[in-house]
Amino acid sequence: MSERYDIAIVGSGPAGLSAALNAKIRKKNFIIFGNKELSGKLTKAHEINNYLGFYRKSGKEIQEEFNNHLKEMDISITEERINTIYAMGDYFALMVNEKMYEATSVILATGVQYGKLFDGEERLLGKGVGYCATCDAPLYKDKIVTIIAYNKHEEEEANFIASIASKVYYIPMYIEEVEVDASIEIIKDTPLEIIGEDKVSKLKLNNSEIDTDGIFILRDSISPGQLVPGIILADNHIEVDRMMKTNIPGCFASGDVVGKPYQYIKSAGEGNIAGLSAASYVDSINKK
Amino acid sequence: MSERYDIAIVGSGPAGLSAALNAKIRKKNFIIFGNKELSGKLTKAHEINNYLGFYRKSGKEIQEEFNNHLKEMDISITEERINTIYAMGDYFALMVNEKMYEATSVILATGVQYGKLFDGEERLLGKGVGYCATCDAPLYKDKIVTIIAYNKHEEEEANFIASIASKVYYIPMYIEEVEVDASIEIIKDTPLEIIGEDKVSKLKLNNSEIDTDGIFILRDSISPGQLVPGIILADNHIEVDRMMKTNIPGCFASGDVVGKPYQYIKSAGEGNIAGLSAASYVDSINKK
Ligand SMILES: Cc1cc2nc3c(=O)[nH]c(=O)nc-3n(C[C@H](O)[C@H](O)[C@H](O)COP(=O)(O)OP(=O)(O)OC[C@H]3O[C@@H](n4cnc5c(N)ncnc54)[C@H](O)[C@@H]3O)c2cc1C
Ligand SMILES: Cc1cc2nc3c(=O)[nH]c(=O)nc-3n(C[C@H](O)[C@H](O)[C@H](O)COP(=O)(O)OP(=O)(O)OC[C@H]3O[C@@H](n4cnc5c(N)ncnc54)[C@H](O)[C@@H]3O)c2cc1C
Repeated sequence: MSERYDIAIVGSGPAGLSAALNAKIRKKNFIIFGNKELSGKLTKAHEINNYLGFYRKSGKEIQEEFNNHLKEMDISITEERINTIYAMGDYFALMVNEKMYEATSVILATGVQYGKLFDGEERLLGKGVGYCATCDAPLYKDKIVTIIAYNKHEEEEANFIASIASKVYYIPMYIEEVEVDASIEIIKDTPLEIIGEDKVSKLKLNNSEIDTDGIFILRDSISPGQLVPGIILADNHIEVDRMMKTNIPGCFASGDVVGKPYQYIKSAGEGNIAGLSAASYVDSINKK
Repeated sequence: MSERYDIAIVGSGPAGLSAALNAKIRKKNFIIFGNKELSGKLTKAHEINNYLGFYRKSGKEIQEEFNNHLKEMDISITEERINTIYAMGDYFALMVNEKMYEATSVILATGVQYGKLFDGEERLLGKGVGYCATCDAPLYKDKIVTIIAYNKHEEEEANFIASIASKVYYIPMYIEEVEVDASIEIIKDTPLEIIGEDKVSKLKLNNSEIDTDGIFILRDSISPGQLVPGIILADNHIEVDRMMKTNIPGCFASGDVVGKPYQYIKSAGEGNIAGLSAASYVDSINKK
């Protein structure tokens, strides 16, 4: 049986990190998923002036301060991308492809994906459009699959699905060199529209069109409704109360994912609340 | 006519300061009331570990970082204590004894007063118990008034009321030397209970009892219901939505005053939201 954590924090931006500090101070057994870069939205910021206490620092400089803080408190980030989280009643199952983590409570701090959806994406979601290739792989045995990937680490996902599907098209949306299995056809073109009546049939790109049975769009963050089946959204964000509780007992959320304004210290403040709320939840469960 | 500010921020703790940064970035004409110490709850903290980016710093060290940030952004604090705020329709009137400030919108960031009320205080509020001696002075012409003061700067208030009342008792709750007019009787004893049926008649102290018509309790922060007549509270805190709006249009609130958990970065995060909400409100008013 896998270890059961008190708290699993999903996301390593200001919201997730702030939640982690408070989970640590409350002496909970927790795990935080994300990446060593912490947050692309942090490292890309040129100059930040509205995080009280830091003036005229670049995102990279603040990233360093955050990293020092984590190091001093002996917090390290588990580099995994959670695909789906299932509420199992008294615990949560967090899926990373074939791997599973268990936790009594969960804090969602996954941020938001800027930029808009492709034409047809929303309409055909679940009808050939998906966000987790490995999860849905069995559906595409001997079929044609297209992967639109925003991050080099999705290449692994593509290689896996190539072992099942009859044909895989791979559309890299990143600048690094692509290294995938020879059987995969790489298409360097910009996707425009997903076409199909009741299910996906084609992908229209800027200079071409391809026939396909399934399209996986692998962005850096998954829409929260996809990530946690059953979670209630409001205006495309996770609905929370002022204690950062979602509709699912034991599941909390904070940061951009719960709504505007999209800001660092707003996210960190909400992470602080979520961390304390999750710790209290765990205490109340353990008392039973 | 006095200058009309876009935004008046009341309170100089993490919530008020964070609101000020965002008002400045949004180029609003604003004023922030408080004190040069920023927040007693900051300077008194021995070691703070849960403000993301600062590790093992004392409250004084973080106060210095905050002060640097303010200085660099050319924000200075107006050292006044606001007694009452009246919603006048399209603007707010902020009263400091006989002085008045005007602003299109207001952000309440006054923190909370720890410690409990005196026995009888709540029951007799408005029936002889008050929080602003200068405001209610006319009611006590030729009467006996008792002042319970938590801060040396209340001595001025006592001297003023002594010019109107027939007798003033002054009970200092601070350690500094007391310097008040000779006509005022200083009592060094601990208040226990306020006594009276429909109105105040006596104050019971640890070693004595005094007859009095009015009792002013001058703490460092005023209860929000007293500060802003008409504001809706929930559980003794100001009720706000996720954009930090109160029930009064143009009036926002953030920090400890809107509810638990009482934490620095939670307060700063809410101040960030309140600052942006107030700026948007001002923009919408100016467009009309
Ligand atoms: C260029 C730029 C400049 C900005 N400048 C400012 C500014 O000056 N001031 C300001 O206040 N705000 C600014 N922002 C906004 C700010 O970046 C965001 O509000 C903030 O980063 C949100 O924090 P968060 O923790 O909610 O999410 P994020 O910072 O987006 O972090 C989420 C993290 O979780 C990871 N993640 C997502 N899903 C999963 C999953 N399923 N499993 C594991 N990990 C996952 C992501 O990869 C990411 O690392 C700026 C944004 C950008 C893009
Ligand atoms: C000893 C101690 C240690 C703490 N340690 C921690 C910790 O480690 N981590 C943590 O997260 N939190 C800690 N806290 C809690 C933290 O101090 C508060 O949550 C935080 O200061 C609240 O910020 P605020 O801006 O809402 O209000 P405050 O910091 O209380 O600031 C409000 C300010 O407004 C001023 N003000 C009030 N009314 C008026 C008025 N009418 N006119 C003008 N000015 C006014 C006040 O004088 C004060 O300066 C600690 C608190 C204490 C007392």
